[in-house]
Amino acid sequence: MIIQLKKNISPEQIFVIRTELDKHKYSASDVNTQKNSYLVAIGKAEIDIRRIGSLPGVADIHRVSDDYKLVSRKWKTEYSEIDFGDNVKISASALSIMAGPCSIEGEELIVKTVEHLKSNNIRFMRGGVFKPRSSPYAFRGVGIDGLKLFAKHCHAAGIKVVTEVMQTSQIDDMYQYVDMFQVGARNSQNYNLLDALGKVDKPILLKRGLSGTVEELLFSAEYIFSGGNEKIALCERGIRTYEKSYRNVLDINAIPFLKDKSHLPVILDPSHAVGIRKYVDSVALAGVMAGADGIIFEMHDQPEIAFSDGQQSLNFPESKKLYAQLRAAFELRKSF
Amino acid sequence: MIIQLKKNISPEQIFVIRTELDKHKYSASDVNTQKNSYLVAIGKAEIDIRRIGSLPGVADIHRVSDDYKLVSRKWKTEYSEIDFGDNVKISASALSIMAGPCSIEGEELIVKTVEHLKSNNIRFMRGGVFKPRSSPYAFRGVGIDGLKLFAKHCHAAGIKVVTEVMQTSQIDDMYQYVDMFQVGARNSQNYNLLDALGKVDKPILLKRGLSGTVEELLFSAEYIFSGGNEKIALCERGIRTYEKSYRNVLDINAIPFLKDKSHLPVILDPSHAVGIRKYVDSVALAGVMAGADGIIFEMHDQPEIAFSDGQQSLNFPESKKLYAQLRAAFELRKSF
Amino acid sequence: MIIQLKKNISPEQIFVIRTELDKHKYSASDVNTQKNSYLVAIGKAEIDIRRIGSLPGVADIHRVSDDYKLVSRKWKTEYSEIDFGDNVKISASALSIMAGPCSIEGEELIVKTVEHLKSNNIRFMRGGVFKPRSSPYAFRGVGIDGLKLFAKHCHAAGIKVVTEVMQTSQIDDMYQYVDMFQVGARNSQNYNLLDALGKVDKPILLKRGLSGTVEELLFSAEYIFSGGNEKIALCERGIRTYEKSYRNVLDINAIPFLKDKSHLPVILDPSHAVGIRKYVDSVALAGVMAGADGIIFEMHDQPEIAFSDGQQSLNFPESKKLYAQLRAAFELRKSF
Amino acid sequence: MIIQLKKNISPEQIFVIRTELDKHKYSASDVNTQKNSYLVAIGKAEIDIRRIGSLPGVADIHRVSDDYKLVSRKWKTEYSEIDFGDNVKISASALSIMAGPCSIEGEELIVKTVEHLKSNNIRFMRGGVFKPRSSPYAFRGVGIDGLKLFAKHCHAAGIKVVTEVMQTSQIDDMYQYVDMFQVGARNSQNYNLLDALGKVDKPILLKRGLSGTVEELLFSAEYIFSGGNEKIALCERGIRTYEKSYRNVLDINAIPFLKDKSHLPVILDPSHAVGIRKYVDSVALAGVMAGADGIIFEMHDQPEIAFSDGQQSLNFPESKKLYAQLRAAFELRKSF
Repeated sequence: MIIQLKKNISPEQIFVIRTELDKHKYSASDVNTQKNSYLVAIGKAEIDIRRIGSLPGVADIHRVSDDYKLVSRKWKTEYSEIDFGDNVKISASALSIMAGPCSIEGEELIVKTVEHLKSNNIRFMRGGVFKPRSSPYAFRGVGIDGLKLFAKHCHAAGIKVVTEVMQTSQIDDMYQYVDMFQVGARNSQNYNLLDALGKVDKPILLKRGLSGTVEELLFSAEYIFSGGNEKIALCERGIRTYEKSYRNVLDINAIPFLKDKSHLPVILDPSHAVGIRKYVDSVALAGVMAGADGIIFEMHDQPEIAFSDGQQSLNFPESKKLYAQLRAAFELRKSF
Repeated sequence: MIIQLKKNISPEQIFVIRTELDKHKYSASDVNTQKNSYLVAIGKAEIDIRRIGSLPGVADIHRVSDDYKLVSRKWKTEYSEIDFGDNVKISASALSIMAGPCSIEGEELIVKTVEHLKSNNIRFMRGGVFKPRSSPYAFRGVGIDGLKLFAKHCHAAGIKVVTEVMQTSQIDDMYQYVDMFQVGARNSQNYNLLDALGKVDKPILLKRGLSGTVEELLFSAEYIFSGGNEKIALCERGIRTYEKSYRNVLDINAIPFLKDKSHLPVILDPSHAVGIRKYVDSVALAGVMAGADGIIFEMHDQPEIAFSDGQQSLNFPESKKLYAQLRAAFELRKSF
Repeated sequence: MIIQLKKNISPEQIFVIRTELDKHKYSASDVNTQKNSYLVAIGKAEIDIRRIGSLPGVADIHRVSDDYKLVSRKWKTEYSEIDFGDNVKISASALSIMAGPCSIEGEELIVKTVEHLKSNNIRFMRGGVFKPRSSPYAFRGVGIDGLKLFAKHCHAAGIKVVTEVMQTSQIDDMYQYVDMFQVGARNSQNYNLLDALGKVDKPILLKRGLSGTVEELLFSAEYIFSGGNEKIALCERGIRTYEKSYRNVLDINAIPFLKDKSHLPVILDPSHAVGIRKYVDSVALAGVMAGADGIIFEMHDQPEIAFSDGQQSLNFPESKKLYAQLRAAFELRKSF
Repeated sequence: MIIQLKKNISPEQIFVIRTELDKHKYSASDVNTQKNSYLVAIGKAEIDIRRIGSLPGVADIHRVSDDYKLVSRKWKTEYSEIDFGDNVKISASALSIMAGPCSIEGEELIVKTVEHLKSNNIRFMRGGVFKPRSSPYAFRGVGIDGLKLFAKHCHAAGIKVVTEVMQTSQIDDMYQYVDMFQVGARNSQNYNLLDALGKVDKPILLKRGLSGTVEELLFSAEYIFSGGNEKIALCERGIRTYEKSYRNVLDINAIPFLKDKSHLPVILDPSHAVGIRKYVDSVALAGVMAGADGIIFEMHDQPEIAFSDGQQSLNFPESKKLYAQLRAAFELRKSF
C-alpha cells in the first residue's frame, strides 16, 4: 500500500496513521523523495484502505499488489517524465536518443562527437570514464579529468552528459559534471550504490543486470525511488543466454512488459544487446516499435580504432541515418 | 563449396567433376531439389574453384565458408521466395501474415476464422490438428478429419493451410490438404522428419528449437534443402531462458542475423515468443521493424474458451487492428 | 489418481468404475503395461478415493498430486528395477555401468571393447549406430549392419546392447539386436517415438532434452509408461546454459530430485555432461555420490582417432581405474 | 608472463626489467602482495623468457597463456593454502566445513550454533550481518552490533568468522571481527570492492556471480590477487538457468575445472546451489567427490523459524550426520 502524504502533514498526523497500520500488523517505511512524501506499508491482513485514506494528512492512497510498490503503475498510471531543463526531457511523448563512444578517449573525439550530435539535434551524449573490465590489467577509463573535458564541451553545446558511476565514493566528485548517472549491468544489484543514488537529485539510467530478471530491475529501481530519487529510467541491454552468435540476446518482450508494469521510462541499449555493428539499426528500430521511450547506442568517429567496443559502434554517417529512421518509427508507433 | 549443375549435365561430366574433387580429398554430396541439381563439396585443401567452375556441365560455383552451405547467402545473395500459386507468396517484398487458432476445434470456428481472414485479405490460416503436448493425458488434436474440414473451407476461400506435422508417417495422409507443413519447436532437430520433408514438394515452416541456436536452425534447414526441398521459411518463436515473466524470450537479434546469413525468408511467431496476449502486438511490430518477412500468430473468436493457448490468442477485432499496424510498419521499413 | 486393476477384472466392473469417475467429471485413461493394468483418472473435484477403492476389481488406489502420475513415487514408493535376465539389472541396490564408443566403428573396436568390458565385469556396452548430427553432411552412423555385429559380439559375452533409436520406423529392424533402446536428447519430446516405445517390451534409456526441464523428462517417461512399457531409466546428460567452458552443465541437482519424485532408476552420462576427458571421472563420481543408480560413459580404445566425441572419451586403462572408484563411491553412499 | 621478484630487488634492477619489457611492447603491472612482489607483463610479441629470467633481481619467471595470470595454475602448480592460525587452514589436504545461519539473528542462536560447531570440531561459522535483499523493504541484517556478538562467541571458542561484506566503506568497521570476508554473488564483479579487498590482509571467500562464468570468477580473483591479497578461496554456489524445480543449478563441472585451472582452493555452497533442504546433503557429497576443498552450508537451530533461507537450512542433527558423511567422502576421494 502506498500512502501519499500531504506536504503540510504534521508529526501527530503521521503518528495516527502509523498507529492504525500497526493495528493491522503492517510495517511502514517512510519515503521522502525530491517530489513527495509517502508511507509504503506492507502487510498481509485485509484492510479497508478508505479508512486510512480518510485520515488527516493523507493526500492519496493506493493498494499495490506487485511486490515492488513505488515504481509500479498500479498507483501511478500516467507515465513519469524526467526533466533535465533546457527543454530536454525523457518522456513517452518524444523519443530520446543518446549516442557517444563506449569510452571517452581524448578531447578531439569529444569535440567531434559533440559537433555531430548538435548538428543532428541529439541532446544526450553517452561515454564512459570509469570502465568496468573483466581483467584488472585492461584499460579502466580516463577518470575524472576525462569527465571534466566531456562535460565542458557537452554543456557548452546544451548536451546532457550520461556516464557510468561504479561506486558510492565517486558520486561526489562526479556530481557537478554529470547530468544522468548510469548504473551498469554489473552493478544492477549493488544495493549500497542504489541506496546512495537515492539520495542524489540527478536522474539515473538503471541498466538491467547481465542475467537480471525484469522483476529484479524493478526492485533495483524501487531501491533508488524509496531512497528518495524519483528520476529513474530503466534500461534493457540484452541478457545472457546459451546463444553465442551475438553478444547478448535483446529481450524485446521486456519493453512492453516494463511499460505495462511501471510508470518509469524505458530506454533500449541496442549496442550491447546485439554487439555486432550491422545489426544495431534493426534491433534499435525494433525497440522503438515495441514501445521504448529512448535509445542509447555506441557511436565512434572511427570505430575501427576505438579503445573499446568498436565492433558494435556505429560511425557518424550510419548514426545520422539511424536517427531519421528511429524518429520515423517513433512517429508511426505514436500514431497507432 | 556449392557446384550448381546444368540441367542437361551428363553422367560422364559429373564423373569428371567428382574425380577432380576426389583429387583434393573433397567429399561431395549430390543434391537434387525440385528446382536444381548441386554438388555440395566439403574439404580442407586450398583449391582453385575457377578450375572446377570451367568444367563442362557446371552452371555456377561458389565458395561458402559457413558450416551450412545451401541455405547460406554466401552463394545466393538475393532472397528466396516461396510461391504458393494464386498470387500468394512468401517473399521479402510483401509482408506475409498467418493467423488462426492454436488448435483446430470445430467447423464453426473454422468457418468464422476463414471469413475473418478473407475479409481482411489474409491469405494464410494456421491451426494445429496434431498437437505436441507435455502430458500424454492432454488433448492431442482433432487429427486428420479436422484437417479435411480445415482445408475444405480454406481452399474454397483461396486461403493457404499451415499446420504442424509431427512424424514422417503422417506426411502422406496430410499431403493433399496442407499447403505448408510446419515443423514444431520440439521437432526442430528430428532429423528423420527433416529428411522426409526434403522429399516433399510443398513449403516448410521450420521453427527454431525450444533452446535451439540460430546455427542449429540453419543446419536443420540445410537438412531439408539438401534432401531436395528448397521451399523453406525459418521461424523465430522465442527461446527458453531464466526469465519467467513471460513464456519465452523473443530473440529479436535472430531476425537480422538470419536475414544476413541466409537467403531463406524469416517469419516471426510473436504468440509463443511472449505468450501474453497484451504484449503480442508490440513484439510482432518489433519483428517487422527488425526485418521479418512474415508474422504467424494465434487468433481465436473467443480466446477465453479456446482449447489451448487462449491466454496468448488475439480476438478478431484485435487482429484486424494489428494487420493494419503490421502493414504500416512493413511499408515504413521498406522505405528505409 | 491411479487405480490399479486386478488381473481378472471384468468389463462390467470397469464400466462401474468409469461410471463413478464420470459422475465426478474425471477423465480416465486405460493403461495396460506388460506388468499391470491401470486407470489414470484426472479431474478437479474433491473425491472420496476409498469409495472407488472399495469397488470390485480394484487392486489398489492412489491419489497422486504431481502432474505426472505413473512415474511418480507418490503411488509407488519402492524403487523400480529393470531386469535384463542373466543376472543383469538396473536397480538401486547395485551400480550399473555402461561404457563404449560414441559411434560403433568397425568389428575390431567392438571386439576389443567387449573383451575389456568382460574382463572388468561390466555388463552393458553402449554404442551408436544411428547418429543424430547437426550437419546433414556429417557421418550418420554404420546403421543396421553395424548393429548386428555389435549385438553378435556382446551377446556372445553376456553383455547387453544399449543403442539409440531415432525414429519409429527403425524399431522393428533393431528390435532383435537391442537390449535397451536409448532415446537421445534431441528426441526427448518426440512424442510419437515415445508412444511407439510404449508398445515395445524392452527397456528404454530416456535422455533429458538439451534444455529439457526435469518435469518434462518425467512427462516424457509418462508417455512411455502410459503407452504400456514400465521399463524406463531416466538419464541426466547435462543441460545447455550460458557457460561455455565445457560442453554442457551437469545438473547434479537433478539426481536427488528425480530419485525423490520418481520410482524410476536414474543414470548419469558424464561424458556429454562435461565433454572434456580429464573431468569425466570427477563428475561421474559426483553423480554416484548424489545418488545415481548407474553411469553411462564414452570409452574408446584410441580416443584420439575416434569417429566422434574422442575428446570426451576415456581410454581403457582410464576406464578400468574409474570402475573401481565408482564402485567404491557407490559402496560408501550405500553405507550412509 | 609472471615475473616473480626477489625480496631485495633494487629500483635500478626493476628499471632494467621494465626497459626490456618495453622493448617488446609488453605492458607491465606491479603486484605487491603480502607474500611476494611480481611484475605481470602482457604483450603479443614472441619473447625469450630465459633472457628476462636471467636478469638480476628476478626470482622466477613463467609464461601463462591463460587470460588470467596470477590465479592460474600455469605458473604455480601446487595448490595454495590459506592459513588462519590456530591450526585452521583451507587446503587441499583436509576438508574445510563452514556452517551457520543465513542471517545472524540474536545472541541465543549464536551461542547454540557455536556450541554445536565446537562439539563437532567444525572451525568456521558462517552468518550474514549485512544482507543483500531484492526488496528495499526486506530485513537487511543485524549490522555491526550483531557482528560483534557473532565474533565474541566464535573467537572464545576458536572458531573463525565468515561473513559477507557488501561495500568498501564497511571493511574498516568489520575488519577486527572478521576472519574471512565473503564477497556475495551479486558483488562478484563489483570491481571497486574487489580492488579494496586486495588491500586487506585477511582471506576472501569469493562467490561466483548469479550468472557468472568460471572465467569471470577467475578474473575477479585476479583483481583481488593483483591488488595484493593472495588469500582467496573460490566458491561455486549454483548458477541461474531455465530450470525452475530448484533455486539454482549447481554447476558441478566447475569444481574439477577450477581445480585444474587455478591453484586457489575451491569451496562449494550446496545450500544456495539447490535451495531445498532435503537435497543439500546429496549435492554437498557430490561436491566433495568432485574435488571440492570445502563446503559452506546454511544451518539453523530451528529452520522453520529462521529469518531467511529456512527452507534450505539443515538443523543440527542433520548437520552432524552430514559432517561424518562429508569426511568419509573426502577420505575416499583422497585415497584415489
